[in-house]
Amino acid sequence: MLDWIDNYDERDWQTTTDGTVRYALLGLGWWTIDVALPAIESSDLGEVTTLVSSSTEKAQRLAEENGVDHGINYDEFHDGAVSDAYDAVYVGTPNAYHLEYVETAADLDKAVLCEKPMEATIDRASRMVDVCETADVPLMIAYRMHTDPAVRRAKELIDDGFIGEPVSVYGNNSQPLLEMIPDPDQWRLDPDLSGYGTSVMDLGIYSINTTRYLLERDPVAVQSQMSSHHDAFADVPDERSAALLVLEDDVKMVTTDSQNAHEDTNLKITGTEGQIEFQPAFHGQVELRLSRNDLSVTIEHEAFDAEREMEEEFDYFANRVLTDGEIYADGRHGLTDMRIIRALHEAAESGDVVEL
Amino acid sequence: MLDWIDNYDERDWQTTTDGTVRYALLGLGWWTIDVALPAIESSDLGEVTTLVSSSTEKAQRLAEENGVDHGINYDEFHDGAVSDAYDAVYVGTPNAYHLEYVETAADLDKAVLCEKPMEATIDRASRMVDVCETADVPLMIAYRMHTDPAVRRAKELIDDGFIGEPVSVYGNNSQPLLEMIPDPDQWRLDPDLSGYGTSVMDLGIYSINTTRYLLERDPVAVQSQMSSHHDAFADVPDERSAALLVLEDDVKMVTTDSQNAHEDTNLKITGTEGQIEFQPAFHGQVELRLSRNDLSVTIEHEAFDAEREMEEEFDYFANRVLTDGEIYADGRHGLTDMRIIRALHEAAESGDVVEL
Repeated sequence: MLDWIDNYDERDWQTTTDGTVRYALLGLGWWTIDVALPAIESSDLGEVTTLVSSSTEKAQRLAEENGVDHGINYDEFHDGAVSDAYDAVYVGTPNAYHLEYVETAADLDKAVLCEKPMEATIDRASRMVDVCETADVPLMIAYRMHTDPAVRRAKELIDDGFIGEPVSVYGNNSQPLLEMIPDPDQWRLDPDLSGYGTSVMDLGIYSINTTRYLLERDPVAVQSQMSSHHDAFADVPDERSAALLVLEDDVKMVTTDSQNAHEDTNLKITGTEGQIEFQPAFHGQVELRLSRNDLSVTIEHEAFDAEREMEEEFDYFANRVLTDGEIYADGRHGLTDMRIIRALHEAAESGDVVEL
Repeated sequence: MLDWIDNYDERDWQTTTDGTVRYALLGLGWWTIDVALPAIESSDLGEVTTLVSSSTEKAQRLAEENGVDHGINYDEFHDGAVSDAYDAVYVGTPNAYHLEYVETAADLDKAVLCEKPMEATIDRASRMVDVCETADVPLMIAYRMHTDPAVRRAKELIDDGFIGEPVSVYGNNSQPLLEMIPDPDQWRLDPDLSGYGTSVMDLGIYSINTTRYLLERDPVAVQSQMSSHHDAFADVPDERSAALLVLEDDVKMVTTDSQNAHEDTNLKITGTEGQIEFQPAFHGQVELRLSRNDLSVTIEHEAFDAEREMEEEFDYFANRVLTDGEIYADGRHGLTDMRIIRALHEAAESGDVVEL
């Protein structure tokens, strides 16, 4: 137990402490500037040298404010401006713009860390995988939960049999999007930019992907219900959604997600012998509860928040790029999520079980 | 707040403190003897005068051990033995035996408190309702969560708008049945005695019914997945199950249940403005968590356990019988649960959305 606590945030993936990956950041919204940029600056193996935005002026102003060398616009990026100044790109734009920036990055022989969901549609996500494989550049999809120490230690416990055989999973990810970003025209509510919808693409993906990581089991059949009521959600099918997924080995998973509800993030995996629960799971400081027999343990750790998860994620990515190592959440891993999300939308439309 | 805390376990349903309902208890398993009987003895308005079992010997032995006047067997019960000694029956037998005892109780003009699910099949449940309506005897289905103070105060908060508009519901009820009752031939695993199955009939009914009570909304469409793996579950379809239910007003509900998993009972209702969660919800000492805006409150109360819930339930029932008052969870309320459970089994078999 002492050993387990002392090693709680150990980076079991780390194979080098030498070298630096220099980043260009694309898509300068609050997440990139307030979370990703400071996470890279606190990381061991990363450094931000370039900011890329729609206008040179905005990019240069933010570069100056944040002590970054270069600020360029997207056209300049596509033309290869200052491409000697960075080794990798972090793509944090709206979903439907990911592909075009990854295409250019691949042309420029840069490694790619692309936010999730990887694109707006499965066809575009597929092209992203092809482009990076053809150019032989590393592509990682930014699933920050994979490098959260709470999630990694939970996976160790699951692998060691802590919960026995997994039986059921519950995930919820809900937030009041219009209170957080009071703009009914924001990109997450525009299917041309977000893709198949909003609550599963943006929120449900956390429950699904974190479960895939923890259990190493993918969904094989899904059912779903989606609906929109509020005017701001008129163009997307899933202001609120619920799903029933059967994973490999007959694990039953249920999820609920909403972009217009009280904030709650929760992931719970119940097995024949025990249970592992994260609540909050995906926002704020993650709290992990372990139960087995009559005993319950609650674990809190300052490392479990989004910025620290991102710091871990950037160092994991940099480590892989510097050592030419295999990337866990590569493009094909992200593509599977896209297939699952599309299947959930098909299931909601048809009412049928959609098999994967 | 002070007022709310001081009045936490108040019986807002109580209209009399006078009178006594004398009970005959049918089905002398551990629940009846260890929970129901002491609950009646601690209650204000109830008294146990008669125990009914398969053998006179067992009934009389248990009557003697528990200071109860009469012990009779089922044949004697059907013949009206000692029927002057009791005013009401509590039916705690396996599901498929409920109807025959309720029929005799109705013949004898006795009030009926019948355990949930009310019978093994919807046809038999329907006959129970007819029999009691024709005989004009009170029929209540024993949903103990309805009189749990935590559940009642949560309902007040929901009615007052604490969670805003309800958006989603999650319920889980899982337990290791074969560890609790190490007999593969027990009645809960025999569809002739349990009915449509085991995990939804015996466990899932808690999430579904408590949500119906709290939100005053019934399911209108359901989807479901069920499966059995362990040998002891060969005759029932649902060692484990998961469901997706759409309730009135488009509330999305998901549930998981298993008779062969780590014990966990959890009910969570998320609205546009807040959240109410019970965990544990249906066993042990219920803990209630309220969240709204950035505030979370956890409420614990010694009153929230099964025996106390049963005491409240027996006094509620006695109150209604003594005052000829309307019963909330009457036979028709229970019949709706039977329709929902049957629909879930149909949905699991077909893979289709089943409408109610």
